[in-house]
Amino acid sequence: MKNIYLLGATGSIGTQTIEIIEKHPDAFCLKAISGYKNLDSIIEIASKFCLDLIAVKDMEDALIIQKHFPNTKVVYGENGLIELAVCNPKDKEGLLINALVGMVGLKPTIESIQINRNVLLANKESLVVGGHLIKDLLEEHDVHLFPIDSEHNAIWQMLQGENPKFIKKLYITASGGSFRDLSRAQLSDVTVSQALKHPNWTMGSKITIDSATMMNKGFEIIEAAYLFDMDIENIVPIIHRESIIHSMVEYIDNSISGLLATPDMRMPISYAMFYPEREESLIKPLDFTKLSKLTFEEVDYERYPLVKLAIKAYALGGSARTVLNAANEACVDLFLKQKIKFIDIETIVSKSVNTHKVIAHPSLDEIYEIDKAIKKEIYKKYNN
Amino acid sequence: MKNIYLLGATGSIGTQTIEIIEKHPDAFCLKAISGYKNLDSIIEIASKFCLDLIAVKDMEDALIIQKHFPNTKVVYGENGLIELAVCNPKDKEGLLINALVGMVGLKPTIESIQINRNVLLANKESLVVGGHLIKDLLEEHDVHLFPIDSEHNAIWQMLQGENPKFIKKLYITASGGSFRDLSRAQLSDVTVSQALKHPNWTMGSKITIDSATMMNKGFEIIEAAYLFDMDIENIVPIIHRESIIHSMVEYIDNSISGLLATPDMRMPISYAMFYPEREESLIKPLDFTKLSKLTFEEVDYERYPLVKLAIKAYALGGSARTVLNAANEACVDLFLKQKIKFIDIETIVSKSVNTHKVIAHPSLDEIYEIDKAIKKEIYKKYNN
Repeated sequence: MKNIYLLGATGSIGTQTIEIIEKHPDAFCLKAISGYKNLDSIIEIASKFCLDLIAVKDMEDALIIQKHFPNTKVVYGENGLIELAVCNPKDKEGLLINALVGMVGLKPTIESIQINRNVLLANKESLVVGGHLIKDLLEEHDVHLFPIDSEHNAIWQMLQGENPKFIKKLYITASGGSFRDLSRAQLSDVTVSQALKHPNWTMGSKITIDSATMMNKGFEIIEAAYLFDMDIENIVPIIHRESIIHSMVEYIDNSISGLLATPDMRMPISYAMFYPEREESLIKPLDFTKLSKLTFEEVDYERYPLVKLAIKAYALGGSARTVLNAANEACVDLFLKQKIKFIDIETIVSKSVNTHKVIAHPSLDEIYEIDKAIKKEIYKKYNN
Repeated sequence: MKNIYLLGATGSIGTQTIEIIEKHPDAFCLKAISGYKNLDSIIEIASKFCLDLIAVKDMEDALIIQKHFPNTKVVYGENGLIELAVCNPKDKEGLLINALVGMVGLKPTIESIQINRNVLLANKESLVVGGHLIKDLLEEHDVHLFPIDSEHNAIWQMLQGENPKFIKKLYITASGGSFRDLSRAQLSDVTVSQALKHPNWTMGSKITIDSATMMNKGFEIIEAAYLFDMDIENIVPIIHRESIIHSMVEYIDNSISGLLATPDMRMPISYAMFYPEREESLIKPLDFTKLSKLTFEEVDYERYPLVKLAIKAYALGGSARTVLNAANEACVDLFLKQKIKFIDIETIVSKSVNTHKVIAHPSLDEIYEIDKAIKKEIYKKYNN
């Protein structure tokens, strides 16, 4: 029986994690959740499980939840998320599932590693922004990060039993996002609701926009570099419209192993939760007779400049990755609020990275300062 | 340095094996070859390597080869193939590569296992006909069979680091062979030269015809059942015209891992030779930008009755598999000699299996007797 500490319980990944827990009550016990401001969902989840801790965004909400569940510890704010990550600190078999969106996920990941608790990571920002810190901590604490991104999870599966010295290249597949059939010129007037229609996956709005700009894929390239200790030039994004092959590993003998599955996040979540075991899952088996075809296209960096920019930010190193993420977080938020156009996301993020003076090994405090400064600057200019 | 004992050195697999040995003189030393009646090729190979033994088909040819290479042991006939398999019996690190075509490959496989030498197996008949004997011997001698069929090799690669208890299904991919675009009605007058034009692979004539009838795929299903200890109903053939995915494994959580590579037999041969290492290979890396698409189709058992027949023969058990193979060997030979039509292969092989009275656990002697009797009967009837 593994205890689950779940950050982001009311989002898309969180909801699917809870489905898996409910299907396997003998394997997992949900111990703590965070749920931002979704009180109804929090109450619903907390009524079904005997939780040790609930984290919400604001104090007022914490008081409401506390009344409903007087025997459960209720916390709030960013510190509440950290309290969740280190809840029951002696429970070494427990798993932190970090499904937060944004920079707010970084500190909980770090704190969990520091109490020697393995982390199932959906929060991209932890590695994109804090990869250099996390890598050292993982070694120091002998703790594992298990990716629940479908792409990295696929690569992780493929690398079971393989010697890392034989890996030549990683292929990260990409659907191409909502606007994959539009040229750059056609992007100028796209709307928020068009951007939120992802062809293959049902996900939160932030990640759906990141998928449309393919910033998402840029982040995943950086994550893969940290997770699998690969040179970034050997991590190749490839457009695969059907989202059936979830990523691939090429070996020095030019064999390539790939993971195929129905596009359903319950697959990577469940693999990571049960690892090193496998269990019957909730996802549909692939039906090859219904798969008409699988296609592949090179990623055009002119069409998707943020992928190239992510690779550049990784090469620049240190704080450039913080700026990349901070500018993108602000811009996606502003786009969703209809303060800027879709195409502005690329322009503003690129400008932010290209004008930033890089700090080589930023500390956690420096990261948060830079993040704040960049966001402040962008909101000041465009949020009106 | 591994010593290589190579049965079938002058055929397609043999030639490619020698290319790999020549590229890696520090890793492999060719010690013995068999070459049937291809004296020119034998002389060419033997001039380049310092061989301990050469096996040919006939005594007269042995005398000719002996004159050329007075310091090398030269043997002939079926016993010569066995002498090759057990050459230098104390060399436990040596590998037998069995690339013989037909029943003639069975005894050398068995003899090699009996001297505790691992076998790299391209000879399908060893397992199709003698699977029940070989399985017991492998356990008894703690010896491994490493498949160099592209399909089984792919599955073997995929299963590295995976727990067999989580395997749900194996998908064996099939190109569909030379006549995949013809209906059954259109098969009645196809010629030998049409049948020998395989869309994706360059192989010997026997296996190219077996690919056109998909008898080949039936054999591979039986082989997979023995190699991976799977129930035959969980081994599913699937038509994949591009021959890029070389086979797949489905797990209980509905993840599927697949091996992708340029269709080039040097990949599986090289993987098996270097195992558990990988080495830079002679095959071209896959270029995803040039892959237009990958497609999949269900196998129509009405169109390809020999696949169904193979599954039936496996279920019938014992000597039914010997009959399946013997009748097919005879029929393919008769078709190549233009004594029977393409479509007759299916009719005659099916009739042979369906009228045979099964012996449950045939001994090696019984297998050879049945093989001889079936072939004799078919040749008597059609070879005129």
